[in-house]
Amino acid sequence: AISLLKIPPSCVDSSTGATPSEEMNGTGNLMDFLDEPFPDVGTYEDFHTIDWLREKSRDTDRHRKITTKSKESYWELIKSLLDAWSGWVVMLLIGMLTGTLAGVIDLAVDWMTDLKEGVCLSALYYSREQCCWTSNETTFDDRDKCPQWQKWAELMTGHSEGAGAYVLNYFLYVLWALLFSFLAVSLVRVFAPYACGSGIPEIKTILSGFIIRGYLGKWTLLIKTVTLVLAVSSGLSLGKEGPLVHVACCCGNLFCSLFSKYSKNEGKRREVLSAAAAAGVSVAFGAPIGGVLFSLEEVSYYFPLKTLWRSFFAALVAAFTLRAINPFGNSRLVLFYVEYHTPWYMAELVPFILLGVFGGLWGALFIRGNIAWCRRRKTTLLGKYPVLEVIVITGITAVLAFPNPYTRRSTSELISELFNDCGALESSQLCDYVNNPNMSRPVDDIPDRPAGPGVYSALWQLALALIFKIVITIFTFGMKIPSGLFIPSMAVGAIAGRIVGIAVEQMAYHHHDWIIFKNWCRPGADCVTPGLYAMVGAAACLGGVTRMTVSLVVIMFELTGGLEYIVPLMAAAVTSKWVADAFGKEGIYESHIQLNGYPYLDVRDEFTHRTLATDVMRPRRSEPPLAVLTQDSTTVEDVETLIKDTDYNGFPVVVSRESERLIGFVQRRELTVAIKTARQKQDGVVSSSVVYFTEDNPQVAEACDPQPLKLRRILNLSPFTVTDHTPMETVVDIFRKLGLRQCLVTRSGRLLGIITKKDVLRHMAQMMNQDPESIMFN
Amino acid sequence: AISLLKIPPSCVDSSTGATPSEEMNGTGNLMDFLDEPFPDVGTYEDFHTIDWLREKSRDTDRHRKITTKSKESYWELIKSLLDAWSGWVVMLLIGMLTGTLAGVIDLAVDWMTDLKEGVCLSALYYSREQCCWTSNETTFDDRDKCPQWQKWAELMTGHSEGAGAYVLNYFLYVLWALLFSFLAVSLVRVFAPYACGSGIPEIKTILSGFIIRGYLGKWTLLIKTVTLVLAVSSGLSLGKEGPLVHVACCCGNLFCSLFSKYSKNEGKRREVLSAAAAAGVSVAFGAPIGGVLFSLEEVSYYFPLKTLWRSFFAALVAAFTLRAINPFGNSRLVLFYVEYHTPWYMAELVPFILLGVFGGLWGALFIRGNIAWCRRRKTTLLGKYPVLEVIVITGITAVLAFPNPYTRRSTSELISELFNDCGALESSQLCDYVNNPNMSRPVDDIPDRPAGPGVYSALWQLALALIFKIVITIFTFGMKIPSGLFIPSMAVGAIAGRIVGIAVEQMAYHHHDWIIFKNWCRPGADCVTPGLYAMVGAAACLGGVTRMTVSLVVIMFELTGGLEYIVPLMAAAVTSKWVADAFGKEGIYESHIQLNGYPYLDVRDEFTHRTLATDVMRPRRSEPPLAVLTQDSTTVEDVETLIKDTDYNGFPVVVSRESERLIGFVQRRELTVAIKTARQKQDGVVSSSVVYFTEDNPQVAEACDPQPLKLRRILNLSPFTVTDHTPMETVVDIFRKLGLRQCLVTRSGRLLGIITKKDVLRHMAQMMNQDPESIMFN
Repeated sequence: AISLLKIPPSCVDSSTGATPSEEMNGTGNLMDFLDEPFPDVGTYEDFHTIDWLREKSRDTDRHRKITTKSKESYWELIKSLLDAWSGWVVMLLIGMLTGTLAGVIDLAVDWMTDLKEGVCLSALYYSREQCCWTSNETTFDDRDKCPQWQKWAELMTGHSEGAGAYVLNYFLYVLWALLFSFLAVSLVRVFAPYACGSGIPEIKTILSGFIIRGYLGKWTLLIKTVTLVLAVSSGLSLGKEGPLVHVACCCGNLFCSLFSKYSKNEGKRREVLSAAAAAGVSVAFGAPIGGVLFSLEEVSYYFPLKTLWRSFFAALVAAFTLRAINPFGNSRLVLFYVEYHTPWYMAELVPFILLGVFGGLWGALFIRGNIAWCRRRKTTLLGKYPVLEVIVITGITAVLAFPNPYTRRSTSELISELFNDCGALESSQLCDYVNNPNMSRPVDDIPDRPAGPGVYSALWQLALALIFKIVITIFTFGMKIPSGLFIPSMAVGAIAGRIVGIAVEQMAYHHHDWIIFKNWCRPGADCVTPGLYAMVGAAACLGGVTRMTVSLVVIMFELTGGLEYIVPLMAAAVTSKWVADAFGKEGIYESHIQLNGYPYLDVRDEFTHRTLATDVMRPRRSEPPLAVLTQDSTTVEDVETLIKDTDYNGFPVVVSRESERLIGFVQRRELTVAIKTARQKQDGVVSSSVVYFTEDNPQVAEACDPQPLKLRRILNLSPFTVTDHTPMETVVDIFRKLGLRQCLVTRSGRLLGIITKKDVLRHMAQMMNQDPESIMFN
Repeated sequence: AISLLKIPPSCVDSSTGATPSEEMNGTGNLMDFLDEPFPDVGTYEDFHTIDWLREKSRDTDRHRKITTKSKESYWELIKSLLDAWSGWVVMLLIGMLTGTLAGVIDLAVDWMTDLKEGVCLSALYYSREQCCWTSNETTFDDRDKCPQWQKWAELMTGHSEGAGAYVLNYFLYVLWALLFSFLAVSLVRVFAPYACGSGIPEIKTILSGFIIRGYLGKWTLLIKTVTLVLAVSSGLSLGKEGPLVHVACCCGNLFCSLFSKYSKNEGKRREVLSAAAAAGVSVAFGAPIGGVLFSLEEVSYYFPLKTLWRSFFAALVAAFTLRAINPFGNSRLVLFYVEYHTPWYMAELVPFILLGVFGGLWGALFIRGNIAWCRRRKTTLLGKYPVLEVIVITGITAVLAFPNPYTRRSTSELISELFNDCGALESSQLCDYVNNPNMSRPVDDIPDRPAGPGVYSALWQLALALIFKIVITIFTFGMKIPSGLFIPSMAVGAIAGRIVGIAVEQMAYHHHDWIIFKNWCRPGADCVTPGLYAMVGAAACLGGVTRMTVSLVVIMFELTGGLEYIVPLMAAAVTSKWVADAFGKEGIYESHIQLNGYPYLDVRDEFTHRTLATDVMRPRRSEPPLAVLTQDSTTVEDVETLIKDTDYNGFPVVVSRESERLIGFVQRRELTVAIKTARQKQDGVVSSSVVYFTEDNPQVAEACDPQPLKLRRILNLSPFTVTDHTPMETVVDIFRKLGLRQCLVTRSGRLLGIITKKDVLRHMAQMMNQDPESIMFN
C-alpha cells in the first residue's frame, strides 16, 4: 500500500505534479495492493465451477517462485525439496488414515452386527467370531456356537430354544436395528447433512471442478465414519464401499490443508482427491490396482500420469495399513476373498452370459426405480420426514430379514458364503451335499455330488432373499444415511449366480450323458463351481448398476487372484453393460448427478450434433446485447451498476462499443473487490472516475477530473475464444479437456457472445432429448 | 461436376446472365466438386503431423451420416450396427493374430536357440525340451540330457566329451549365431528398413499424431516377425518384448484397413494402435492388465475410456490365444512366471532399495552410453556398414557368451532360472546348497542352508555375465535388427539381484545372532528368497531404463500373482526412477525420440517457464510479415506465387491487409488441389481471377472480368486462436490436449502471428537447455 502514496492524494494537490510521474509509468504499480491482501482472492464461491487453466497456471507460478528462491540459500533449497515431496507425504498420510478408518469401521461393524443377536460374555467388545475364536473348547465345526457367546434370549431368560426365545431374539434384533438407524439418521441430520448417501455422485462432480463447501469437511468425515458403522450394522440393504470413497476423500481434503500447495489450489487439491478415491476403493475391496482404475475410469476428471502413480502409492499404503489391522483375522483385506481350484469350461459361458443379462436388467430396473423413488421423495411430502423414512425402512427390513438366515446376517458375510466353494470341511447349509462315504480326495478336488435337502431349502431361502434384496435396495439407496450400493448389488448378483450355479451343477451331475456335458463333465469330476457363478453374477449386477467395466473386472480379478476367471467375468460384465445401456446410457451415479442438477460434463458422453457455437452462445437474438466493459470509457459507476444489475461471473472488455474488438476478460469477483478497495484506499476515485484497462497511462485532460482507476492487473489478457462457426462438438471438447468456465465467441475479431459451462450443459441436455435414439450408437 | 454447367462456360457468354443466377447464391454449389473426388483429400503427407480436432470432427460427421441413414431402412440399420461393432471385431482380430504371432515366435526362438547347440534326432523340429519331454527313458533329474538330443560335436564326431568336441561345439555355436544375425540384418536392409530397433520410440511418436508411412505396413510386420526370431536366436543381448509391441501395432494397422472407419481416419486408427500396443505387452509378459497400463502410461497419447476398455479386451484375447498355443508347455504365458512361498521382512527393504539404486545407475549409464554410441553411429563412418556392425557384435557376443553357461543359453531362460526359488528338486548349479540329510520338509518350505561349491562358482560366473551383459547391451540396442531391451535390462537386474540375494541369505544363515537377523531369521527358518531379489533387481533395472512405474509394478505383480511382493517391487521401482531421474529426466524411448528428432510433445514434461505466446510466434521481429491471404482481393496468381515461395502448411485468411481481422485458415494442400482443379475444370478461372473466401456472392463488375474463384468451402472458419499474452504454459497445454497442428495468435482481434507444433517443441527444447536445474523439481 506504500506505493499508493506516490499518487497525489487529491486532484487539487496534483497541480504540483500534473505530468504523470515516472513511477506511474510502470504497468502495475497502482494495483500492487491487489497482490496478496485479500484472503479469498483466487478462491471460488460455493456451488461455482473452477477454472482449471487458471489453477494450473497459478500452480506453475508458485512452483516457479520456489524454484527461483531455492537457488538463494540452502534453507530455501530444503524447503523446495520438501515442497516437491509434499505430494508423497500427503499420499502416505491419506493411505494410512484411510486404511485405519477402514479397519476400524470393519471391526466396529462386525461387533455391532453381532450385537443385534447376542453378546460375548468373556469380553463385551468381542464379535462372535473373535469371541469363539479365543475359546479353546470348541471344535472347528461348531465354531459359531461357543458357550461364551450368548444370544439375547439365552442371556435374559436362560432358554436358547423355543418360540419365546425366538420372539425375544426377533424383537431385540429389530429394536437394535431401529436404534442404530435412528442414531445414524439423527447424527446426519444434526451434524453433517452432507454425510448422507454414497457420496460418489458428488465426488465426481467435485472432481470435475465444482465447489461444494463442507462436503469433504472434518465434520463430514467424522459423522460419516460413525454413521456408516451404524447404518451398516442396522442391517439395512446398503454397503460401506461407496461411503468409504467419500471418507477417503475427506481424509484427502483434511491432509490437503497441511500444505498450502494443495489447500490453496483447487486444481492440485483435486489431484489429491482422485488418489484418495483410489485408496478408498482399495480398502473397500482389497484391490489396490482396481482402486486406481476405478478412480481413473469412474470418478476422476483430470488424471495426469503423476496422479496415476501417486494414487497407486496411496492405494497400496491404505491396503497395507488395513492388512496390518487385520480386521477379519485372516490377513485378507476383504471378507469375500476366494480361491477356486477348478477351471471353467467353454459351455459355461452360456449361463455366465445369462447372468450378464440378468445383471443388466437388474441395473436398468434399479436405476429407473431408484431415480423414480428419489424424485418422488424430492417432490412430495415424503422428503419432509427423512428420519421417519429411515425408521420405517429399517423396521420393514429388520422384520423381513430376521426369519431368513441369508438376510439376517450381514450382507458381506452372505456374499462371502455365496462366493465360497464347498470344501470338505464346510458346514454351511449350502454345502449339504450327499457325500460318497468312500471318497477320500483332497479338500481342493471334490467331485460333483447330488444336492442334499439342505441345499434345496437353501435355494428357496435364497430365492426369497433375492426378491427381498431387489425390492428393498431400490428404496434404501438415497435415504439420509450413508449408503453404498456395491454390496447390495453384489449380493443380488451373488444370490442369482449361486442359484444358477447350483442348477447347472445338478443338471451336470444328473445328466452326464447330455451332449453339452459329455465332453467336460464325466462322473466323479469336479466340473461346476457354484461359487464362481455367484462371483460372475455379482460382477454382472455391479456392472449393470455402475457401468464400470475394466475396474470392475480388475477388482474381481484381485479378489480371486487368478487370470483364469477373467473371461467369465468379462463376458458377464460386457453383456451386463450392453443390456443395461440399451435401457438408458447412464449409470446410477450419472443419474443421481442429473437428478441433483450438478453441472457435470461427462467425459464419456460423445456430442455428435451438428450445432455451432453461434447456436449456443448468449445473447440470443431476442436478448439484450452482451454486457461488456470498454477499455477506457467506462466509469466506476457504470461498472457498479453493471455488477448490481447482472449476475454474470465476469465481463469481457472490448476496445470500444463500436469496434467490439476483444481485449480481455475480467472476473466479477475481482472487479468487485478492486473497486471496493480502490474506493476505500485510493483517494480521488469517485463514481465518475473512468476505469482504464489499457497499458498506457491515461491522459488526465483536466486537473480536476476525477482520478482514473487502472485495473489492468485484474484483466485476464488471454481469454479463451472460439469463432462463431466452431462446431459445438469442438467446443464441448475444449470445455472438457481444458476445464474452462467460459469461452468467448468472436467473428473476424469482433466479440459476438459468450458460452459458459452451463450453456454447454444445457445445450447438451437439449440435444440429447431431441434425439434419444443416438444413445444406441455410442 | 454437373452443377458446374450452371456457370457460363466463358466470360463472353456470361453477358446473357450478367446478374448472378439464383443457383449461384448457395454457399457451396461452386465447390461441390471438392466433396469427394480426390482420393487423398483429408489424408496427410508423410512425416507430417495430424490435426486431432479435425480427425475427430470428421469421424463425428461420418457417424452422424450413418445414424441418419440407419433410420431409412433395415439394411442401413444393420450396417450401422456393424459399424458400431467393428471396433470390437478389430480388437478380436488383433488379439488373435498378436497372440498367434507371439506363440509362433516363442516356439521358433526356442527351437533355433537350441539349434545353435545341437539337434533333436527323433524330430528335427523339436527344441531340446520338447525332444527330451517326449522321451520316456529319462528321469526327472537329467531331463536336459536325453539320448534323442545330440550336440553337434556328438552328432558329427561321435564324441560328446573332450577338448575337440568343445571346440567344435564352440565353433558351430558362433557360426550359427553369425548366420542368424546375418540373415536378420540382410532381410531388414533389403525388405523393410523400418523393421529395425525396438519400434517403441516411433510408435510413441506415431500415436502422438505423426505420420510415418510404411512404419506399420505389411512388409514391416512380416520382416519384423521373421528377423525378430533370427535376432533373438542369434544370442545377441536383446529381447523380443519391444518388437512384439511393434508387431502388434502392425497387426492393428493391418486390421484397420478392413474398416473405412479406421483406415480413413488417422485419429481413430491411433485408438486401435493404442489397444494393439497393450496386446503386444500382454503377450510379451503374460500380463494383460500390465499391458493396458503400459499402453496408457508409456506409449499412448490420446487414451479415452473407450480405448481403455477395448485395449483390455484385445490384451485378454491375445493372452488367451497365446495360452491356447501354450509355447512353453506349462500353460503359462511367459517363461519366467514364478511363485514364492515365503514372505519378505521389513529389514530386507534395505537391499531392495540398494537394488533400486543400482537399477537407477544402470538406467542412467545405459541411456547415456547407448545414446552416445547411437549418435556416433549416425555421424561417423560406423553407420555406413550396418551389416558389418551386426556381424562383428554378434561374433563378439557369441565368442564371449559360449564359455559362460549363464550367457550361453537364451536370456529369458537365464531370467527364469534366476527368478526361481530353489526347491527340493532343483538341479541347477545355483541351487547347490549343502543339504541336511535329516531334513524332510515339503518342497515349499526349505530352510536356509549353507551354500555349496556350485553356488560359489555360479556367483563368479554370474558376476562375469553381469559385466558382459552391461557392456554388450549398450552396443547392441539400436543396431539394424529388431531389438528390445526389456529382457537384457531385466537380465542385468536379475543377475545383480540374485547375487545380492545369495549374499544376504548366506549372511543371515551364518549370523543368526546379528541384531537385524535375530527377529525374523531363526535357524532352520526359510527367511531369504534369492529369487525375489532377482525379481526386484529386474524391476529396478527395467524401471531405470524405461522409467515405467505403475505398469512395471503391475507387470511384475502379474508375474508373481501375489499382492505380497508389491511393496519390495515398488520400493525398488521408485528408487530406481528417482536415481535415474537425477541423471536425466528422459527414459530411453524419449532419448531415442530426441535423437531422431521426431516432433513428440511429451505429456509428462511440465512446461513451467514464464514465456508468452508472443515470444514464440512467428514472424519474429526481424522476419518478413506473416504470409496471409485476404478474403476478397487475392488473385489466383498471388496464391500460386505464395504457395511456390513458401512451404507453410497453411495460410490464415484476413478481411484485408489493413484491418488484419482473422476470418479463417486454409490448408496448403487443399488450396493447391482446389486451384489446380479449378484451372482444369472450371472455365474462366485464369491467373488474374480473384479468389473469394467470403460468403456473399462477389460483385462481378465488368462482364469481361475473369471469373472469380470461390473457395469458401475449403476455408476452415474455426481456426484456433490465442492472444499474444497467453502464457506458453497454457499454449503447450492446449497443443497437447487438443492435438493441434498450429494456432493463430491475435491481439484485440488483429492477427499477429502463428505458432506451429514445431515452434512449440523448439521453444520447449530451448527453455529446457537454458534451465537444466528445473528438471529436479518435477
